[in-house]
Amino acid sequence: MIIAGVEAGGTKFVCGVGTDEGEVLERVSFSTTLPDETIHQAVDCLVAMRNQYAWQSLGLASFGPIDLHRESPSYGYITSSPKLTWQQVNIVGLLEQALGTQVYFDTDVNAAALAEQRWGAAKVKESVVYITVGTGVGGGALVNGKLVHGILHPEMGHMPIRSMSNFQGICPFHKSCLEGLASGPAMQARWGVPAEELPPDHPAWQEEANHLAQGLVSIISILSPGIIVLGGGVMNQTHLLPLVRQAVQDLLNGYIAVPEITKHIDQYIVPAGLGSNAGLLGAMALTLI
Amino acid sequence: MIIAGVEAGGTKFVCGVGTDEGEVLERVSFSTTLPDETIHQAVDCLVAMRNQYAWQSLGLASFGPIDLHRESPSYGYITSSPKLTWQQVNIVGLLEQALGTQVYFDTDVNAAALAEQRWGAAKVKESVVYITVGTGVGGGALVNGKLVHGILHPEMGHMPIRSMSNFQGICPFHKSCLEGLASGPAMQARWGVPAEELPPDHPAWQEEANHLAQGLVSIISILSPGIIVLGGGVMNQTHLLPLVRQAVQDLLNGYIAVPEITKHIDQYIVPAGLGSNAGLLGAMALTLI
Repeated sequence: MIIAGVEAGGTKFVCGVGTDEGEVLERVSFSTTLPDETIHQAVDCLVAMRNQYAWQSLGLASFGPIDLHRESPSYGYITSSPKLTWQQVNIVGLLEQALGTQVYFDTDVNAAALAEQRWGAAKVKESVVYITVGTGVGGGALVNGKLVHGILHPEMGHMPIRSMSNFQGICPFHKSCLEGLASGPAMQARWGVPAEELPPDHPAWQEEANHLAQGLVSIISILSPGIIVLGGGVMNQTHLLPLVRQAVQDLLNGYIAVPEITKHIDQYIVPAGLGSNAGLLGAMALTLI
Repeated sequence: MIIAGVEAGGTKFVCGVGTDEGEVLERVSFSTTLPDETIHQAVDCLVAMRNQYAWQSLGLASFGPIDLHRESPSYGYITSSPKLTWQQVNIVGLLEQALGTQVYFDTDVNAAALAEQRWGAAKVKESVVYITVGTGVGGGALVNGKLVHGILHPEMGHMPIRSMSNFQGICPFHKSCLEGLASGPAMQARWGVPAEELPPDHPAWQEEANHLAQGLVSIISILSPGIIVLGGGVMNQTHLLPLVRQAVQDLLNGYIAVPEITKHIDQYIVPAGLGSNAGLLGAMALTLI
């Protein structure tokens, strides 16, 4: 079966088609500008792909916050996003109307968690957390094999943590939340250069690991997931992951005495398996559940 | 149907019988001493209740950490508990052997979450978090209607938070975890008197609310539960709950803009509905899922 997907990100959109086995056949990406322009571009792209591949279903993995309650008048809208021009944009409705097809819909990070569980680093796990550390910090989750929703959806970047310095972070809403302290732009604000220009032995990385570990320990304390997958641009600095694992063990200090943490943490906190395709494949996977 | 339940707590055990509609017919409680003695006492009590009520199934809601993996050699054991004499006690096996019946088994707080969802303050919610603030701080959760398990089970008392003072808490494992700062004994260590002796206008209560709110905001950021139920001895100080609700709103600062938080938080963060029977009813409810 051929499926189409849209990853709607705050900085770029990715449109693509692939198979129900997780193979991407084609992908196109373009910058996120104003809603009308960007959604129009996505529609053009999806129409061209439908002509070529005859895709049968369409999934959308979107930045948020988004309204996932089917009975809500704003179902399918991006709601209180810090990206102001996109607030109250009916992204699902606009795509459905333009394309005449149902759109399966969830957050970019919930979708990525689903894709990693189906085709990536978290295969066959019933309980998965996916965290992206990039322009922002976000997290999605599956518990008992199902995506986590509630009054909203996970917004893991906004949990309060302890700053390891006097820097209180860059989140306009919260002092010392995970995103405000550990995102790429937060590292740049703290150290004055882009994160990727900081050498691996710079103290920034230990501090970054300590911030991320607090978030992961809260996740482990609350959800006890079967596996934690870390993706996003900041995690591309591969020297960071071992520091994060060690910081998680240090912070737990032996309290959660299971072998996944005490002995095999390298198989418990793992890098994303789908790389930059996680969001697109996640959008596609949403049509399969 | 008549069901028996055991709430195995770190300070006391409760044995009881009730109906599958959540009515408690009889309950007996006694202090938790050494494992042999206490389990023997529970067995005697359950045998007497079987003779009188002919209960048909038995649930156990236990302090932990406990091993819930059926395929594990230590399934049914209390494992790395800070209560040293109870470490590696096969509580499920001992009860099953003595009583000749299967024991349904989960943590005290997961069981309480289940009971509150079935018969208490969280009726018909698909996604529920129950937090107890007492001798310790613990939390249980249902997501998509099912109890949350993973590499272990929720251990919500041990998430890292920011201390609101120089006091770093009393947890032997972690500086500034939720239990170490916000449990009853933590308040006593910080202020020099038992929590219930602190007057309602004492600054201790605002600090307690700020500590608890950090835990709740992390829970909301990660799980987005449909309702949060607060129980335990410290929450019996009823002036605390409004302070906690306000502190949660202050800390979120409008970021999660859903009516459950911005408008109806008094129906979102609610007191336990089952009072001191939550654990016992939870044990009984475990036999019904």
